[in-house]
Amino acid sequence: MNAPEHPTPFDAAALDAADTLAPLRDLFDLPADVIYLDGNSLGPLPRATAERVAQLVRGEWGEGLIRSWNTAGWFALPGRLGDAIAPLIGAGAGQVLACDTTSINLYKVLAAFVGQRSAGRTRIVSERSNFPTDLYIAQGLCQQHGMTLHLVEHADDIPAAVGADVAVLMLTHVNYRDGRMHDMVALTAAAHAAGAFAIWDLAHSAGAVPVDLLGAGADAAVGCGYKYLNGGPGAPAFVWVHPKHLGPGTTLAQPLQGWWGHAAPFAFVPQYQPGAGIERFQCGTQPVLALAALGCGLDTLHAAQPLGGMAALRAKSLALTDAFIAAAQPICAAHGLRVATPLAHALRGSQVSLAWDAAAQPRPGAGYAVVQALIARGVIGDFRKGDARMADILRFGFAPLYLRFADVAQAAQALAEVLHTREWDQPQFLQQGAVT
Amino acid sequence: MNAPEHPTPFDAAALDAADTLAPLRDLFDLPADVIYLDGNSLGPLPRATAERVAQLVRGEWGEGLIRSWNTAGWFALPGRLGDAIAPLIGAGAGQVLACDTTSINLYKVLAAFVGQRSAGRTRIVSERSNFPTDLYIAQGLCQQHGMTLHLVEHADDIPAAVGADVAVLMLTHVNYRDGRMHDMVALTAAAHAAGAFAIWDLAHSAGAVPVDLLGAGADAAVGCGYKYLNGGPGAPAFVWVHPKHLGPGTTLAQPLQGWWGHAAPFAFVPQYQPGAGIERFQCGTQPVLALAALGCGLDTLHAAQPLGGMAALRAKSLALTDAFIAAAQPICAAHGLRVATPLAHALRGSQVSLAWDAAAQPRPGAGYAVVQALIARGVIGDFRKGDARMADILRFGFAPLYLRFADVAQAAQALAEVLHTREWDQPQFLQQGAVT
Repeated sequence: MNAPEHPTPFDAAALDAADTLAPLRDLFDLPADVIYLDGNSLGPLPRATAERVAQLVRGEWGEGLIRSWNTAGWFALPGRLGDAIAPLIGAGAGQVLACDTTSINLYKVLAAFVGQRSAGRTRIVSERSNFPTDLYIAQGLCQQHGMTLHLVEHADDIPAAVGADVAVLMLTHVNYRDGRMHDMVALTAAAHAAGAFAIWDLAHSAGAVPVDLLGAGADAAVGCGYKYLNGGPGAPAFVWVHPKHLGPGTTLAQPLQGWWGHAAPFAFVPQYQPGAGIERFQCGTQPVLALAALGCGLDTLHAAQPLGGMAALRAKSLALTDAFIAAAQPICAAHGLRVATPLAHALRGSQVSLAWDAAAQPRPGAGYAVVQALIARGVIGDFRKGDARMADILRFGFAPLYLRFADVAQAAQALAEVLHTREWDQPQFLQQGAVT
Repeated sequence: MNAPEHPTPFDAAALDAADTLAPLRDLFDLPADVIYLDGNSLGPLPRATAERVAQLVRGEWGEGLIRSWNTAGWFALPGRLGDAIAPLIGAGAGQVLACDTTSINLYKVLAAFVGQRSAGRTRIVSERSNFPTDLYIAQGLCQQHGMTLHLVEHADDIPAAVGADVAVLMLTHVNYRDGRMHDMVALTAAAHAAGAFAIWDLAHSAGAVPVDLLGAGADAAVGCGYKYLNGGPGAPAFVWVHPKHLGPGTTLAQPLQGWWGHAAPFAFVPQYQPGAGIERFQCGTQPVLALAALGCGLDTLHAAQPLGGMAALRAKSLALTDAFIAAAQPICAAHGLRVATPLAHALRGSQVSLAWDAAAQPRPGAGYAVVQALIARGVIGDFRKGDARMADILRFGFAPLYLRFADVAQAAQALAEVLHTREWDQPQFLQQGAVT
C-alpha cells in the first residue's frame, strides 16, 4: 500500500497562539495524557463541578435537608437551567426546561403535537440514520395512534417526503453518525408549507453549533445535557416548545402529566390542571445532584460569551474540523476510509466521521480496532457499527471549548501511525466490548 | 384550655440502650442541632455519599471520561441498584430497575397494564387521598384510552369498588397524608378476583415497612429513591413488574420505548425491539451521579441486614411511632389535633400524622405555623394542606435507621411547648412559603 506515513502538516502552534478561546480550556479538568475527541458523546469534567456537587451534597442536602427545596432553590432548577440553555439554542427566557431524558422529552413533545394533528395526517417523517431512540419513541407513538413512521434514506429527499398526510417532521439537527447538519430554517419551512409540525432534536447541536429555534419558527425541540453542554454522565436533558403553542386559548397537552407540571403542584388537589407555559412539560421530581452538575456545564458555555459566544465557538469548531480533515484525509484515503462528514461548512456539525465500508476494510472489525488502538494511545474517539445500508463509522468530536489545534495535529499523527503500522491489528483491539 | 404542659413521659434512655439498631445512626451525617422527622420526604445524607460522589465525579467522569460507561459499570447501574432494592420489597434479582421518576415509572406500568385490559374494562380505581401525581398520571392515561379514574373516598370501600369493569387497581401502599397502610395481600387478591391488575406505589413503603410483592402476587410496583431509601434529592425511582408478565410469549409493552429498553441498545438498529425482561421498562440515559448517590442510600438499608433487616427496622419503627403517639396524644387532644395515623400496627406506615380540622384550629394557618415553629426549634416535620374534604396534616416521619427514642421524647416535648405557649402564633411562622 502506497500510503503517506504522516498527516498533511499544518501550523498548529500558530493557530493555537491566535485562538482567542484558548483560555477556556482551563475551565476543564482534562487528564494530562488524553486527547479527548468524544465530547460529542460525553463532555469532560468542568473544573467547578466537583466542588459545586460537594457543596450541594454536604451543605444543601446534608445540612439543609428538606428545607433546601426552598432555601437552595431546588424546585426552580429546571427553569433556571432552562434559561441558561435558551440563549444557546435561540429560545427565550421562560421557554426551556432542563429535565428528564432526551427520549422522554421527545415523547412529550411528539405526543403533544401528534395530539394536535388534523384528520388524515397519519405519518411522522424522520431519517433512517436518526439516532435510534428517536425512532423508537416515534414508533411507540405511531403504534398508539395508528400512524406510520416514514424513514427517509437520504437527507436530500426529506422535503419531498413531507406531504399532506404528514403530522410531524422529526429530525435530529446534526446527525450522530456522520455529523451532517440539516438546514433547520428550510426544513421547518417545508414542514409548515405542508401543514406539518417541525420537531428538532438538538443532542449534537446545543453548545456545538449556533441554533435559532425562534428564528426558524420551529415548533418544539429537545436536547441532551451530557454532550457539548458538559453536564456529566446522564445529565438531565432539555425541552422547548414555541410559545405560540402555549399561550392562552391553546390546548397543547403532553401525556406525562406529573405533579411538577401541575399549575399548582403544592395545592395537592386530586385533579390535574396543566401549568400555563412550558411548566406543563415537567413531570416528576428531578435529580438535583445531576441538575447542579449540568449547571456547571452550562457555565462553561456562558464563559465563552465575552469572547464571542456561539459564533466564536462555531468558527473555532469549523477551523478544528477543517484542520483534522485536511491533515487526515490523504492517509485515510490510502486505507479506504472516507470522510463521511460534509466538507461544506453549512452542512457540518462539530465532529468528523470516517466511514469504512465493509468491502474496504482490511479485515472485519478493523474500524472498531482502530478506535481501540487510538484510545490505547490516549486519543479518545468512538465507533458506531454500520449495517448493510450504512458503513462502520469512526467518530471524532471537536469541541471548541477545550481542544487545541495541537490536539488535532497529534490526533491525526496517531491515526496515521495506527493505520500505517497496522497497530490496530491485535487481538486486544479487535475484540468488541459492550460499548465504545 | 386545660392542656397538659408536658408530653406523657417514657424511658427513652432505656429504649435507646436496648436498641440493637442504634449503631446504624453513625451511617449518616445528621446536623447536630436537628431532630429529623422528614425522612419520609427526603432521607438524610449517608456518611459515605459525599466521598462516593466525589470519586465518581473526579475519577470515573473526570479521568475515565467516556470509557467509564464500560469500565465503571455505569450502564449496569439501573439493574445493579434494582437488585439492591429487590430484597427490600420482596422482589427477585433481575426484576427491578432504578431509573427515571416515580411518575414516569407509574406511567410505564399503568400504560402497560391498561394495554392488556380486556374489553369492557373501562375504569382505573384509586383513592382520592392518593399522592396527586399518581392520580394525574392515571387521568392522562384515562383520557388517552377513553377510560375513567374512579376515586374511592374511604380505604374500606376499595374492595367494593373493584368491579368487573375495572382494568387496574392502583394504590399507594402507605398513604402520604395519614400514613395508613393498605393490606397489599388482601387488596391484590380482591383486584385479581375481579379480573383487574394490582399496581402498587411503594414511595412510603420501600425501606420503611416490609413489603412482599411476590408473596402478594402484585402485578407491578413503582417507588421512590429519595425518601426512606436515602438516595438524595430527586434520586432515581424504581420499577418492578411481576416476572410472569415478562416471560416468553408475553406481550406486555410500555410506551416510553427508548434505546436503553431495546433488546440490543448498541446495535443501533432503526427498529425497536423490547428487551426480554424488566429491561424493556428502561427508556433514556440515566443520571449517573444521582444513581451513585442512590447506591449509597441503599447501602444504609443493607447495613441493617445482619441486625435483623426489614423486620428489625419495622419493629423499631412501630416502637418509635407508638412512643410518639403515646407521648403526644394527650397534648394534641387538648388542642384539637387528632392522630390521623391508625393505631393498629397492621395499618400503620412509618409516620405519624396529626390532623387539624379547620374548625378545631385556633386560627387559620395554625397547622402550617406549628410546623414552622417546630422547624425553628430544629424539629423538622412537614405540613400538607387539606381541603373541604380533608383536614390539614402535620407529618412526622420516624425512620428507624437513624432516629433515637430520645429524639421522639424531645420532639414531643417541643410540640407540647409550641402548642402550650402558642409560640407558633407569630407572623414569621404563619406566613406560608412555597413548600414545606
